[in-house]
Amino acid sequence: MKAVRTVEMRGPSGLRIEEVTAPVPGPDEVAVRVRATAINRADLLQTMGLYPAPSGAVQDIPGLEFSGEVAALGARVSRWKVGDRVMGIVAGGAWAETLIIHDRQLIRAPSGVSLEHAAAIPEAFFTAYDALVLQAGMTAGSTVLVHAVASGVGTAAAQLCRLIGASVIGTARSAAKLERVKGLLGSIATTNGPVFADQVKALTGKRGVDIVLDLVGGDFVPESINALASKGTIMLVGLVAGPMAEIPLGALLTKRATITGTSLRARPLEEKVALAQTFEARVVPRFENGELTPVVDAVLPMSDIAAALGRMANNETFGKTILTW
Amino acid sequence: MKAVRTVEMRGPSGLRIEEVTAPVPGPDEVAVRVRATAINRADLLQTMGLYPAPSGAVQDIPGLEFSGEVAALGARVSRWKVGDRVMGIVAGGAWAETLIIHDRQLIRAPSGVSLEHAAAIPEAFFTAYDALVLQAGMTAGSTVLVHAVASGVGTAAAQLCRLIGASVIGTARSAAKLERVKGLLGSIATTNGPVFADQVKALTGKRGVDIVLDLVGGDFVPESINALASKGTIMLVGLVAGPMAEIPLGALLTKRATITGTSLRARPLEEKVALAQTFEARVVPRFENGELTPVVDAVLPMSDIAAALGRMANNETFGKTILTW
Repeated sequence: MKAVRTVEMRGPSGLRIEEVTAPVPGPDEVAVRVRATAINRADLLQTMGLYPAPSGAVQDIPGLEFSGEVAALGARVSRWKVGDRVMGIVAGGAWAETLIIHDRQLIRAPSGVSLEHAAAIPEAFFTAYDALVLQAGMTAGSTVLVHAVASGVGTAAAQLCRLIGASVIGTARSAAKLERVKGLLGSIATTNGPVFADQVKALTGKRGVDIVLDLVGGDFVPESINALASKGTIMLVGLVAGPMAEIPLGALLTKRATITGTSLRARPLEEKVALAQTFEARVVPRFENGELTPVVDAVLPMSDIAAALGRMANNETFGKTILTW
Repeated sequence: MKAVRTVEMRGPSGLRIEEVTAPVPGPDEVAVRVRATAINRADLLQTMGLYPAPSGAVQDIPGLEFSGEVAALGARVSRWKVGDRVMGIVAGGAWAETLIIHDRQLIRAPSGVSLEHAAAIPEAFFTAYDALVLQAGMTAGSTVLVHAVASGVGTAAAQLCRLIGASVIGTARSAAKLERVKGLLGSIATTNGPVFADQVKALTGKRGVDIVLDLVGGDFVPESINALASKGTIMLVGLVAGPMAEIPLGALLTKRATITGTSLRARPLEEKVALAQTFEARVVPRFENGELTPVVDAVLPMSDIAAALGRMANNETFGKTILTW
């Protein structure tokens, strides 16, 4: 099979499409013929050797999410049949024509969504749903601040807020991206970061927000604390703005606030399976009835992957970039 | 009645015992004849004007906890009768011969514990029980790191760990205090802060702790993150070591760690009542059967309050300092 391999740890230019041996499923695993994959900021770090795949995962082929069709079944697998339309996340190896995944970590691709566009769903919507709903307890009436709201996770988060009945405020680097988010999602309130706490308070009747979904980190964190309501939670998902933050601990105490770091890749199998199963039962149907939509910046051939990573690194994308074999 | 009033906002030397008008209970309130009270670090800040009482609380008489007897009942109160032995926390006004508290915020003093010693229970054990059990979910088998383990909250936390079957590691400033904690609590493992993460990992088989109860803040916070196990929680209760911390956000992500600030005083009535009721039902009986014990540094007359606050400020105390009328 063909796969995108990291032949040198020097960023996207160190990637090569090569012929490699296709993996064979173990007894509880499924082989998936990958039709499309999507890129993530973590991929940039991984191609530079800064975010190595966890032990047990494919090491030399990056790629964290995919859509495709079931190609072969392990001996104990009964949930799937060859040809089923599927999608999912993996800790590595999605930039290949075939990948292996545990039976129960694999979920069905939503009917009515093309396989190309389905590849834009897993990382963005798993991350946003897990952080906002399963961890931060977002519900109808919650007020939520989403940083980098024009990103894949950001647009997913804003859609989940709208679906569930939470009020959402977004920040983005550029006015143009904010306009696109408003065009996509309607009445979302937006603010041009990284100075936003006063605007957030004005938009929430001085109360602040219950939840911040922070894909940015760095200096955004203390400002996000200022934007929190009492008992609010910051879900920290990404660190684009930097890995350190000077935190005013007194504000955490008086607001009784919480900061929680989260990551999908570091989880043990049982948690990944639990998230996949919950997502398939509760969220996939919302794509099938049209309430949720993958936000796709571009669909490109896999041979364009280095250029696609470059565009993401330069913040030129809106939503997800898809790559197809 | 007599009360300790803040006549000047310049620390303990600005306190005076004066004759003031005794408060009268409203329809849902109880008047308590205070027999004993205890001091807290928050009192030091309040006497300097740095931590004012919340609106609605007694402003000029500090004091956050008490024990005593029911002296008078509001018209709608049926849970108590005059003379009942009681204790509790208030947002201010406990350094007086009489105070007013909501019927359902008041709890019974444990039988078998003297009223003097009962005054050492509320703040320390409410804080530790709420943070460890109700918020951080401590249970049998949890591993817990308690900073300032020789303090009132620290000794309460260590006792709760032992009671519930959690493993506890403590830090303190001095070897002498650590020896006293070991003498009091038996097999507690201890470490002389603020460099403790390596020791904690060695004591937990490299795993780290599930919960940190941090009464210290400042530079202890990043070191506490290093000492956490995956999915661990830092409950931030005090800031003796400073109000700011440089936080490594990447470690929060990869450990999927949580930092939560907490404070009893800032809570609305309904939360204070809920905590008091839970505490009375679940924790007070453990004092009555001897499994928990208030840790008392000294019992002094109220006229010694300025000197007592000075000893606490200089970290000369072990457990709680009690003041009696």
